[in-house]
Amino acid sequence: MSARVLITEVRAATMAVGAATYGLIPDAAIALDGDRILWVGPRADCPGELATLPRHSFDGRLVTPALIDCHTHIVHAGHRAREFEMRLEGASYEEIARAGGGIISTVSATRAAGEVSLVSAALPRVDALIAEGVSTIEIKSGYGLDIDTEMTMLRAARALGRARPVTIVTSFLGAHAVPSGMDGDSYVDDICLPALDAAQAEGLVDAVDGFCEGIAFNPSQIARVFGHARALGLPVKLHAEQLSHTGGTQLAARYGALSADHIEYAAEADAAALARSGTTAVLLPGAFYTLHETQKPPVDSLRRHGVPMALATDWNPGSSPMGSLLLAMNMGCTLFGLTPAEALAATTRNAARALGLTDRGSIAPGQRADLAIWDVEDPAELSYRFGVNPLHARIYGGVL
Amino acid sequence: MSARVLITEVRAATMAVGAATYGLIPDAAIALDGDRILWVGPRADCPGELATLPRHSFDGRLVTPALIDCHTHIVHAGHRAREFEMRLEGASYEEIARAGGGIISTVSATRAAGEVSLVSAALPRVDALIAEGVSTIEIKSGYGLDIDTEMTMLRAARALGRARPVTIVTSFLGAHAVPSGMDGDSYVDDICLPALDAAQAEGLVDAVDGFCEGIAFNPSQIARVFGHARALGLPVKLHAEQLSHTGGTQLAARYGALSADHIEYAAEADAAALARSGTTAVLLPGAFYTLHETQKPPVDSLRRHGVPMALATDWNPGSSPMGSLLLAMNMGCTLFGLTPAEALAATTRNAARALGLTDRGSIAPGQRADLAIWDVEDPAELSYRFGVNPLHARIYGGVL
Ligand SMILES: [Zn+2]
Ligand SMILES: [Zn+2]
Repeated sequence: MSARVLITEVRAATMAVGAATYGLIPDAAIALDGDRILWVGPRADCPGELATLPRHSFDGRLVTPALIDCHTHIVHAGHRAREFEMRLEGASYEEIARAGGGIISTVSATRAAGEVSLVSAALPRVDALIAEGVSTIEIKSGYGLDIDTEMTMLRAARALGRARPVTIVTSFLGAHAVPSGMDGDSYVDDICLPALDAAQAEGLVDAVDGFCEGIAFNPSQIARVFGHARALGLPVKLHAEQLSHTGGTQLAARYGALSADHIEYAAEADAAALARSGTTAVLLPGAFYTLHETQKPPVDSLRRHGVPMALATDWNPGSSPMGSLLLAMNMGCTLFGLTPAEALAATTRNAARALGLTDRGSIAPGQRADLAIWDVEDPAELSYRFGVNPLHARIYGGVL
Repeated sequence: MSARVLITEVRAATMAVGAATYGLIPDAAIALDGDRILWVGPRADCPGELATLPRHSFDGRLVTPALIDCHTHIVHAGHRAREFEMRLEGASYEEIARAGGGIISTVSATRAAGEVSLVSAALPRVDALIAEGVSTIEIKSGYGLDIDTEMTMLRAARALGRARPVTIVTSFLGAHAVPSGMDGDSYVDDICLPALDAAQAEGLVDAVDGFCEGIAFNPSQIARVFGHARALGLPVKLHAEQLSHTGGTQLAARYGALSADHIEYAAEADAAALARSGTTAVLLPGAFYTLHETQKPPVDSLRRHGVPMALATDWNPGSSPMGSLLLAMNMGCTLFGLTPAEALAATTRNAARALGLTDRGSIAPGQRADLAIWDVEDPAELSYRFGVNPLHARIYGGVL
């Protein structure tokens, strides 16, 4: 469908800004005009000129905004199943490193891969997300750590957006890890910033990300990357306080970051800073779970300060080989104590916000016609069950 | 395919008894004769008369025994998403009970459902497991708690086995919960045992299960149920030491139970007892995860005593609304510390053992031709990734 159409016999969880929890309309109608939402409301209130449109009925099923995965590393080569296995067999981190494990093994595989094979490796990951009603996917670079491969990763991400009817949003994550044999400062100067310039010149960068951590980059190195991003007019975001408290959240807030991600070790004052800067907290329970982390992100502080919370898969081959955003929603509830309504906002309205997108994430006039239709009655079911996928149909850009 | 056929170009994780970890054959051939495995080995060793059979090539993919989910409650009506939500919104157990939550809500819905709607509610659950290469599913009664509904649940389970090309194994779980207004002793005498007799007379019972716990039945009540099962010639199994140590594991061992399930609170001596009785330990990480349990099953003790470990979904609407056996494998590794090889044995060879089935669970001559073919190279990948399903094809009873 590309012209005007009326969706009827649905329960709509609109997730509209300001609406109570789900913004639920039990017997809704939704008019689409091409790739936009024209009107939404109780069916009984449907304006006369819309009532005559061609209809798609969904037999009382639940419709939500299509989901948004706002933090992934799905462009990468290889896997680290053997490293996972060695760890469970009792190998030490040194033994795993000596066997070629760790992020460096993903960097080697990704450098060797080339754009075509990066795309073909990532396509099944995109398809798995699409199968769950995900219409918008953020993808980061960061396994190249050299100028060519960082650009190849971002080109592969853009190619994925042409190969499938989804929106791909890229983040340049040159500051992901320090390659062996280099120090962080010279890596930032000699590789990361030139790579960013080159990628930006080719139109490959939607935002600039970094990993602020003892094992990665310190706040002053991240500040140099962020300053460069600002000079290029690019928004920033940050992997912050994941394994320890290093001040990344406050740094992100000072730069007006779109999001601060992970933030298990963030404190009350960090939540306050995020609230002031309008930064979204992106919670990543897949990594928390895989790393056996016990320090939870400060959900109560985030609530108290009104910081919007998003959830994402963090799909990556090391700390979060998780390919399900629905599972991230269940984990957000079970591991972090989010309510199912918070979890659905976290993968729709707030995930859009974490990407700086204002045209999606809720069912409201003017928003993109990206919808997911589910075989459930109650929106809480989307977070309650896990390891199952109740998607019935999707409408992306108005196309069923 | 129903006659003889040769499967080639596969890596086979045979999971054969006594084989090292996966029993991996890197370049295997597997000859099937109808619904049985005729021969398996390195392709180079394939006997001449098999080499001329019609072939199915799988391009180097991994083949394993089809998976077995040896503990589920997938026949039930209704869901408990609202209860899940209330708990996350801060409601107390009393408030949830007053709102009609808890197991009793599932009992009410199941009593009201009837066989046809129980089957239609369960079919998508069976299909979700089939989509992961599961060919054998155990299903329990236990949400009737009256004679008629316990029988209706078991009839629904049998009907599922006719509706889909899977083997359904039933367990009578009349001793699941004490209905309100009754005491456990009179429930066992007046309902549970007569229901067991009636169900057994109709051929509905493959094994007898119980829930031995402070909130359910005490060991002497379970012993009466087990004594009755023994008199009927039926094998037993038990939900034991899930929430506290009540002696259920030792009781199960005394009755030569097929399996003792959950067993988070089992001790070293319990593991020794299971080893002596040849009982399989069925670990259920989905419930552990959902209930925020912190006491892990005694995996090291089980290993030390050589107790076979199985993993299952425990798919049920309350403590484990989890519909993925692959996720149970990942959780078995990540939450309980199993190795990926132990996790695969736990859903093949040892899951068969937990059901008393000797004709499946490994790729070996004479075993059922129930195979799963996966889009992975390394069997560890089946446990490493989560929230994704790499199944490429299945062969159940020799049928592709
Ligand atoms: Zn990340
Ligand atoms: Zn159970």
